[in-house]
Amino acid sequence: MFNMTSYKCTICDNVYHSTSHFFTCPNCGEKGILDIVYDYGSIKKIINKQTLATNTDFSMWRYGPLVPADQKFTKLMLRIGWTPLYEARRLHDVLGIKQLYIKDEGVNPSGSTKDRASGVAVIKALELGADTICCSSTGNAASSLACHAAHMGLKSVIFVPKRAPIGKLTQMSLYGANVMVVDGDYKDAYRLSKQAIETHGFYNRNAAINPFLVEGKKTVALEILEQLNFKPTDWMAISVGDGCSIAGVYKALYDFKQLGLIEKVPKILGVQSSGCAPFVKALETNGPLVEEDENTIADSIAVGIPRNPIKAMNAIKQSHGHFIEVTDPSILEAMTMLGHFEGIFGEPAGVAALAGIKKAIEKGIIKKRETVTFIMTGNGLKDPVNAQKTGKNSINVANDISEVSKHLIENGVIKP
Amino acid sequence: MFNMTSYKCTICDNVYHSTSHFFTCPNCGEKGILDIVYDYGSIKKIINKQTLATNTDFSMWRYGPLVPADQKFTKLMLRIGWTPLYEARRLHDVLGIKQLYIKDEGVNPSGSTKDRASGVAVIKALELGADTICCSSTGNAASSLACHAAHMGLKSVIFVPKRAPIGKLTQMSLYGANVMVVDGDYKDAYRLSKQAIETHGFYNRNAAINPFLVEGKKTVALEILEQLNFKPTDWMAISVGDGCSIAGVYKALYDFKQLGLIEKVPKILGVQSSGCAPFVKALETNGPLVEEDENTIADSIAVGIPRNPIKAMNAIKQSHGHFIEVTDPSILEAMTMLGHFEGIFGEPAGVAALAGIKKAIEKGIIKKRETVTFIMTGNGLKDPVNAQKTGKNSINVANDISEVSKHLIENGVIKP
Repeated sequence: MFNMTSYKCTICDNVYHSTSHFFTCPNCGEKGILDIVYDYGSIKKIINKQTLATNTDFSMWRYGPLVPADQKFTKLMLRIGWTPLYEARRLHDVLGIKQLYIKDEGVNPSGSTKDRASGVAVIKALELGADTICCSSTGNAASSLACHAAHMGLKSVIFVPKRAPIGKLTQMSLYGANVMVVDGDYKDAYRLSKQAIETHGFYNRNAAINPFLVEGKKTVALEILEQLNFKPTDWMAISVGDGCSIAGVYKALYDFKQLGLIEKVPKILGVQSSGCAPFVKALETNGPLVEEDENTIADSIAVGIPRNPIKAMNAIKQSHGHFIEVTDPSILEAMTMLGHFEGIFGEPAGVAALAGIKKAIEKGIIKKRETVTFIMTGNGLKDPVNAQKTGKNSINVANDISEVSKHLIENGVIKP
Repeated sequence: MFNMTSYKCTICDNVYHSTSHFFTCPNCGEKGILDIVYDYGSIKKIINKQTLATNTDFSMWRYGPLVPADQKFTKLMLRIGWTPLYEARRLHDVLGIKQLYIKDEGVNPSGSTKDRASGVAVIKALELGADTICCSSTGNAASSLACHAAHMGLKSVIFVPKRAPIGKLTQMSLYGANVMVVDGDYKDAYRLSKQAIETHGFYNRNAAINPFLVEGKKTVALEILEQLNFKPTDWMAISVGDGCSIAGVYKALYDFKQLGLIEKVPKILGVQSSGCAPFVKALETNGPLVEEDENTIADSIAVGIPRNPIKAMNAIKQSHGHFIEVTDPSILEAMTMLGHFEGIFGEPAGVAALAGIKKAIEKGIIKKRETVTFIMTGNGLKDPVNAQKTGKNSINVANDISEVSKHLIENGVIKP
């Protein structure tokens, strides 16, 4: 099927034929997340520097041979991916490093990197002839699924924890999703979505369980590698909740290494919020993941029981990277820095990785001579309420020119 | 200078040399908005079907020879333009017309079509060596200017009416703009910005006054024409406030007609909100524009005294188009339609044009056999508060599977 040869269990290493119709390993149960295995020899002939240089599909589907989903649907979809990669103009100096690139995922159709996974999910549902697709989400995966399901004429059923911010809830509702607000946190929303999927036979877009979704998510990093002309920075930083996005980043590096497109695999920096940092704690103790509360403004990465721990841990270990945690105030500081110095407005979870980069530099994990790519995962407009907490605003009230001049002097715009 | 030969006054037709340094006609004063005149003979050699087919700049700057701004700055900027044009999958059927295309301007860097004008403004300020740029705005032009000024290291001073929605104010603040909230409406904000510009010598990004900005705005329509393979739809619909965006649409049609790239000029449908519709009333009475209150949820087009009336009226008359007004409830209905049927979330002013298309079809202005392009000017995430008023939401509270099933039956997702 497509260019995938098989599924491989991330726990027991058992291999299953590509035509199998289960999501997780029959041996290991729900924790036995499967990985998609490709025939890189065949793919090399269709994805290489020559074919990419002349590929005119400027969307995530330019890497179609590396995404096991029926490409006939892709032309009908909203445009996902090929988001801009900016070389920082000032922020690298502020941070004290040689070079910083910023991948702005906020300009995807629904405003976040989750569109890449939703695009794949919607195609897989269509392949199976399903008419309803379901997920639980802290917000972005949900609004993204609602968006792409609506565009492709599918129904969506979405479970969110009660803390989901207004921008995201409104978005889902506008897209016509059937939203179920669960009086609890992400864990509770996840459990109820699982029950609904089993009861009603909906297509399952829960990213960890569904092995295809990481294959969509990885396209963000495939794009970065191509945009950097196959010369990756020393580090790639991304915020981490369930663990699927960081798993996607590593899968991209692995794919392009296997295809001979990159020589070295950059180190991955996984960033969590101090209010919910099970991966950081597991790395520190070298023990298993322990359930955490979900207590942070970075709602998209507030995941108390990550559903994709093995792939996420593997990403850090195989890339010789690091997990780091950052406080809510440092996330708000990073939002302000990104806006002021680069003109990019990110949501808390989206800029958490920038706060992580800053901390990693201060701790000497990232060296000053190193280069970094920061994956900014979501648009700041999704959560204006938390953005207002940045405090460093410069909103003045002025009703005549003397008041205007007074404010401008105070703000340092003009001289007295 | 660049490929422009001169400025021409839209009132007295006087022509001024391209090196002149005034914004409006010295004869006619502030109402004497200038138009940029090009040397189409020279431009034909660099912009034609062959050069466009091989042009790899997928941003508004692919039309650089038609935008009088120093192209050396464009590579340093955030990526503006080359936004997707979607052929509607269901909405044209719902409206009862042959074909509908949707230009999604919400995926620009700051979330609206205003980025195209701000991109030009920032370059013009840099050309002149200015360090501060100033505008008055109902919200989108302001957050857009703040965004691009921040990215290019310029200071921005922005005047907004007190009704500017939270998403936009937060955005400006995050970008580090000096925001002046004026206790009044857009007219008051405009007046005070004019005074501040005169007092402090800031670069003027007020779109009507500054003739370069329409040249940036027009790129949205240049893109549409190219994306439609130079075969425009019968109509192009856009919402209208100050009149600059619709002026840009007509200028694009005029440019491509002069260059021989299109044969027919489509009819332009200009859409205003009933709460503030000076153009509609002027067209009905065939009289001058009369000041109106600014009383609509479509804040981006609530402009009581439009500053670019001549170019806007000209766009409708020259294209044999029409002005139409729509109510706030019909705007909210259009938001829901766009989200539900196409998976696109627009802000009130952004979808007003869709409400206008619907009304124009009902009134027989647009015929059922005709085709339409709808320019969706801004992202719905900018104004979640008004989006919540759509009322047709499907947000349910559910804490166990029986509650979930009950809601799903009520919502028609599953059968009882």
